[in-house]
Amino acid sequence: MSSQRRLIDCESDEENVCEEVPAHRRNRRNEPTDFNIPVTNEADADPAFNLNRRSKEASQYESLDYDVCENVLWRREQTKIKPKFTVRKDFSRWVISLQIGVCTALVACCINIVIEEVSRLKYGFLKRQVDENVLRGDLSIPYLYWSLLNLVPVVIGATLVAYVEPVAAGSGIPQVKCYLNGVKVPRIVRIKTLAVKAVGVATSVIGGLAGGKEGPMIHSGAVIAAGISQGKSTTFRRDLRILQHFRDDHEKRDFVVGGAAAGVAAAFGAPIGGILFSLEEAASFWNQSLIWRTFFASIISSFTLNLILSAYHGLSSFHYRGLFNLGEFAPLPFEYFELPIFMLMGVLGGCSGALWNAVNSRINMFRAHAIKQRWAKVLEAAFVAVLGATFACLMAYTINDCRPLGRDPTEHPVQLFCQDNEYNAAAALWFQTPEATVKALFHDPPGSHKILTLAAFVLDLLSAVVRDRWISSALPLQAFVSPGKYALIGAAAQLGGVVRMTLSLSVILLETTGNIGFILPIILTLMTAKWSGDYFNEGIYDIQIRASRVPMLPWHVEPEYQNLSAHHIMARPVVCVRLEEKVQYLMDILKNTSHNGFPVVEDGDDGSRVNGRLIGLILRSQLVVILKHSYYQESSSFWESTVSIEAFRDAYPRYPAVEDLHVNAHKRSGKFSVNMEMFMNPSPYSVEEGTSVPRIFQLFRALGLRHLVVVSSENRVRGIITRKDFLKHH
Amino acid sequence: MSSQRRLIDCESDEENVCEEVPAHRRNRRNEPTDFNIPVTNEADADPAFNLNRRSKEASQYESLDYDVCENVLWRREQTKIKPKFTVRKDFSRWVISLQIGVCTALVACCINIVIEEVSRLKYGFLKRQVDENVLRGDLSIPYLYWSLLNLVPVVIGATLVAYVEPVAAGSGIPQVKCYLNGVKVPRIVRIKTLAVKAVGVATSVIGGLAGGKEGPMIHSGAVIAAGISQGKSTTFRRDLRILQHFRDDHEKRDFVVGGAAAGVAAAFGAPIGGILFSLEEAASFWNQSLIWRTFFASIISSFTLNLILSAYHGLSSFHYRGLFNLGEFAPLPFEYFELPIFMLMGVLGGCSGALWNAVNSRINMFRAHAIKQRWAKVLEAAFVAVLGATFACLMAYTINDCRPLGRDPTEHPVQLFCQDNEYNAAAALWFQTPEATVKALFHDPPGSHKILTLAAFVLDLLSAVVRDRWISSALPLQAFVSPGKYALIGAAAQLGGVVRMTLSLSVILLETTGNIGFILPIILTLMTAKWSGDYFNEGIYDIQIRASRVPMLPWHVEPEYQNLSAHHIMARPVVCVRLEEKVQYLMDILKNTSHNGFPVVEDGDDGSRVNGRLIGLILRSQLVVILKHSYYQESSSFWESTVSIEAFRDAYPRYPAVEDLHVNAHKRSGKFSVNMEMFMNPSPYSVEEGTSVPRIFQLFRALGLRHLVVVSSENRVRGIITRKDFLKHH
Repeated sequence: MSSQRRLIDCESDEENVCEEVPAHRRNRRNEPTDFNIPVTNEADADPAFNLNRRSKEASQYESLDYDVCENVLWRREQTKIKPKFTVRKDFSRWVISLQIGVCTALVACCINIVIEEVSRLKYGFLKRQVDENVLRGDLSIPYLYWSLLNLVPVVIGATLVAYVEPVAAGSGIPQVKCYLNGVKVPRIVRIKTLAVKAVGVATSVIGGLAGGKEGPMIHSGAVIAAGISQGKSTTFRRDLRILQHFRDDHEKRDFVVGGAAAGVAAAFGAPIGGILFSLEEAASFWNQSLIWRTFFASIISSFTLNLILSAYHGLSSFHYRGLFNLGEFAPLPFEYFELPIFMLMGVLGGCSGALWNAVNSRINMFRAHAIKQRWAKVLEAAFVAVLGATFACLMAYTINDCRPLGRDPTEHPVQLFCQDNEYNAAAALWFQTPEATVKALFHDPPGSHKILTLAAFVLDLLSAVVRDRWISSALPLQAFVSPGKYALIGAAAQLGGVVRMTLSLSVILLETTGNIGFILPIILTLMTAKWSGDYFNEGIYDIQIRASRVPMLPWHVEPEYQNLSAHHIMARPVVCVRLEEKVQYLMDILKNTSHNGFPVVEDGDDGSRVNGRLIGLILRSQLVVILKHSYYQESSSFWESTVSIEAFRDAYPRYPAVEDLHVNAHKRSGKFSVNMEMFMNPSPYSVEEGTSVPRIFQLFRALGLRHLVVVSSENRVRGIITRKDFLKHH
Repeated sequence: MSSQRRLIDCESDEENVCEEVPAHRRNRRNEPTDFNIPVTNEADADPAFNLNRRSKEASQYESLDYDVCENVLWRREQTKIKPKFTVRKDFSRWVISLQIGVCTALVACCINIVIEEVSRLKYGFLKRQVDENVLRGDLSIPYLYWSLLNLVPVVIGATLVAYVEPVAAGSGIPQVKCYLNGVKVPRIVRIKTLAVKAVGVATSVIGGLAGGKEGPMIHSGAVIAAGISQGKSTTFRRDLRILQHFRDDHEKRDFVVGGAAAGVAAAFGAPIGGILFSLEEAASFWNQSLIWRTFFASIISSFTLNLILSAYHGLSSFHYRGLFNLGEFAPLPFEYFELPIFMLMGVLGGCSGALWNAVNSRINMFRAHAIKQRWAKVLEAAFVAVLGATFACLMAYTINDCRPLGRDPTEHPVQLFCQDNEYNAAAALWFQTPEATVKALFHDPPGSHKILTLAAFVLDLLSAVVRDRWISSALPLQAFVSPGKYALIGAAAQLGGVVRMTLSLSVILLETTGNIGFILPIILTLMTAKWSGDYFNEGIYDIQIRASRVPMLPWHVEPEYQNLSAHHIMARPVVCVRLEEKVQYLMDILKNTSHNGFPVVEDGDDGSRVNGRLIGLILRSQLVVILKHSYYQESSSFWESTVSIEAFRDAYPRYPAVEDLHVNAHKRSGKFSVNMEMFMNPSPYSVEEGTSVPRIFQLFRALGLRHLVVVSSENRVRGIITRKDFLKHH
């Protein structure tokens, strides 16, 4: 077992590191050193102790603890629980789902209304500028204004993202996927992230960048769900003292599933698509009541959004079915002979999607290498914003595509050099948000926009690659074909080729276009697009996840692991603790290893912890809380009755760092010890050394495990497996 | 631990019993006796041996083995497998899904076309009879004909079901649910069952019984999937020698999921509803590729059905979207103030559905007690058939609801006592299949049918309770309200109140009515119906499952198990085997216990099997095959190379009964022994005695376990848990 191998087991508390760790400690983390911990009198000279080299990359992500720790405290609480409490708990789950739906929709509405109103002001102002200045023949002033009006919001948004919360960059979908898979992406479900994301989306769309709202909405839904379900906010230092029972990773994840679904529902007006998105991306941990609650959150979200936007736009119609929609399509009849054509389009979409993904990932890799400083990121965004304005102006000024007024429902028809009663179609395309442009392309009668106009527009949208939003990347392609059903199929093929979702995407398209008779062509197209795309590479989110080296569990174990057994992949030796353990030893292992779980063992044959029989598992987070509260056996203040499971819940999810624990020398002196009996998980999952890796993988996937102890046939600890041990790139 | 407790562990081979067991043995099974097995010299006097009382009820159902047995044979095969083979295996999964979709649709089409054609002949003949005889004033002859034409097909169908394959009775949905949950319902996925079911459905609909086709279609899809995926038919004694790798419960179940989805897709023309049905009912074992394959099967099924029925009805239109559909609805606009009304209807639907479920289960219980003989069942069906004819004649003859010809698109307008150019509306309702009647009720203009007509019709349909099909039970209720959206909502509320599905049912209704704008009211109604119904009792399928005492695992562990641990529910002592075991002992335990899994142990401290360390698990089915093939250590014919995993696959799923094994006295004499090493599962799942039951339940649910060995902290066998141990009614 190489030293490389041994690192894999380390899961560190990077989340805490980034937030609460003093500078001196952060430095230490970044330089991998071999710890040869000061072996105290108390700590046995376990060989386990010199394995702890920290690897920055491997330790950036932790796993979530989906497994409920059924220790004595938990059982004691369980026996006190009355049936009424269970009912109330279940009821609050539904209430929280309701709140998640409502809040997600509210956020979506806010973003939408702000974008709409500000864009109206912006383009109204620009139109007036153009109209005034075109008479004087000087178009540089509107150009400058335009650049400025693109630049300012984009710089604001980019600065926020770069300096305040970098994790808010991008669509957020890969991160949410990882979270649902069981990876703790640092800071991904914080309120600050939500705020930055919302402002970032609004400013970038106002600034004319072709960024979709669907990814951010999914991410926002997830944050809202994580926030509401906890009844407290660490950011605001508020604890409402409610919902304490939902303060564990398991319950939180269940709500995040609902939040993501509500986000999709709000973004597309697609409640069923919402639940299917959550399902298709996180199908490993489902049960019926979770399905129903998630469905409820989606419905409420899309209902609230519809209600609010309808009210906002005048109560006459209830057609605002989602933030993004392609408008209502008339029924699209199709003939069976067209199906092969659709499938061919699917193949083309799959291939071009695969190409897109490859190019996108290359560009992203290049950007990750070239643009590292924060100011450079802001500068990049600013550059793209000005480029957009330049491009738009060039096109509007040079392409003289005049059309009679009144046929096109554009809000700001610009006359430019056209006759009276005519307007410039190229300019009209630009004098609206990118989304409205896309919708116009879908629904305007054929020939409304000359190919040249469209080609230029597509070229520009392609520059949006840097923003990796899929809708914007996919839809323009339809411009090359006639509007109507082929446009829709083309868009579906392109989308399917990029994201490789079938079930959820087909339902989203179904719900977005409102055309159920057309479901068969859409599904066929998406299937063929997926198949042909999968021949070349993975979907864009998976590529991004792989690139960011998040230890996400795939659906099936990698082929090279197929014939291995537990002892091939397990990390060893394992740092174990005894049932009764000295404070000094615990402090040492917490400080000098980055493990998050420690098997509790009986003493081995030679009296050491090595080869001890497994009797439990204790987590780093538990040990930290125990030490913080001085739950020592010898403490005069310690009686069992004062020890409460609430102490552990209150610390969730940001447990104190070890370095912030101040255990005075007296307590470290050796007199004080911790009895794990009450705290440890007395029945951790374990497997025998010879168990095959696919079988272990199945356990991780099905149960959402974080630690799996490997034991001999005599139940002696041999090694430990965490999710990183399944990923070959480590 | 009471003796009652000990019985629960027994899972017997009832499937084999019913098929291949000689009469003398079947008799023995039915009389529960205490076996005190002849303790041979070889067999230690394990206390485990006098526990084996057979309980007919508990042993009727086995579990499926979802866990892959990764023994030496399997691993040896795995190492030989080339990547190419894995690709080919995955490809064949898709091909099988395609076949499942196509075949399910074909079966659906056949049933549909037969029903349609025969019904046309039947009602055409009856109309002529009525027309001829009404002039003579004697209506008894058409009545007799009608009775006869109802009676003959119904008796044929009922006889088939009662005498040939009783498991084909009923809708089949509860049975499919059980199968997906992991219960081996005897003979449920056999070709014979499918044949009887198909004929039974056709004859009962032709005979005028109000039975839906949706339940049978789901069941048929499941059978087709199970059949196609295995590449052999035991019934026809054919083995195509293909697809051997799919011959285990795990693979088979995955295909059955697809088959059930394809069945829904064919029944309702609802591909998305199909996959959601499978999902909502069996969500515990999912992964992404299974979702996609299932979706594919659904799509292909609904596509094929559409194509064939469209071709059959003339290639002009492609509107045959499913066997059952409510016809196309015009867009149904709704106002927000109507939502509370819809929700109120949901509450009413939920309450009446709960009432219906209660009444239905009482009636079924009564029938189960009163009608036990097979001939009585046939007689009952015949009685209902004649009753139907009587009722229809009475209504047609006495209600003089005359309408001008041409407004109603009924196929056989009967004049009866009406004026020329008029027809009798009451008779028209009856001169078609029940399904066509329901569709007419939905779409005919308001006032087409007088309330009296409808009320009588509803009363009759209620008699269909005996057939427990939900569509037929739910839809007539809409008759009391105006057609259109309130009819649809009323039907949804009633359906939701009876079956308590939300997600899949809303999508099915959405796809069936083709009205996506109406999805929000439908979902709201279904949700409220479910909530209010759940206040009183469970959904109808769950009630039926509970009544039939199938050990189906619920979604959550029963509350009374909440605070128990493994040692509270485990069965003990356990019959264990040693790594090397004498043939005689194996024959003894196979014959005298009904256990399906035996832990393999090292010898305990006292040299007996009691308290041995767990080193593996061997299944009854494996032992039977080992003995049948004489895989003894001492056999001259035995070399490892001749032992193949194929021998085990070939015997799947109908393993020989122990009594059919003829092991001669010489081999029993004690010289021959079996070495388990190569056959046993070397890493069975095990838990420690103190593990909480909810945690164990979670394991069963997530992994589809059949046996879970309970061990001490030294890994010594203490007990064993099977799924029956979680069900309180045992």
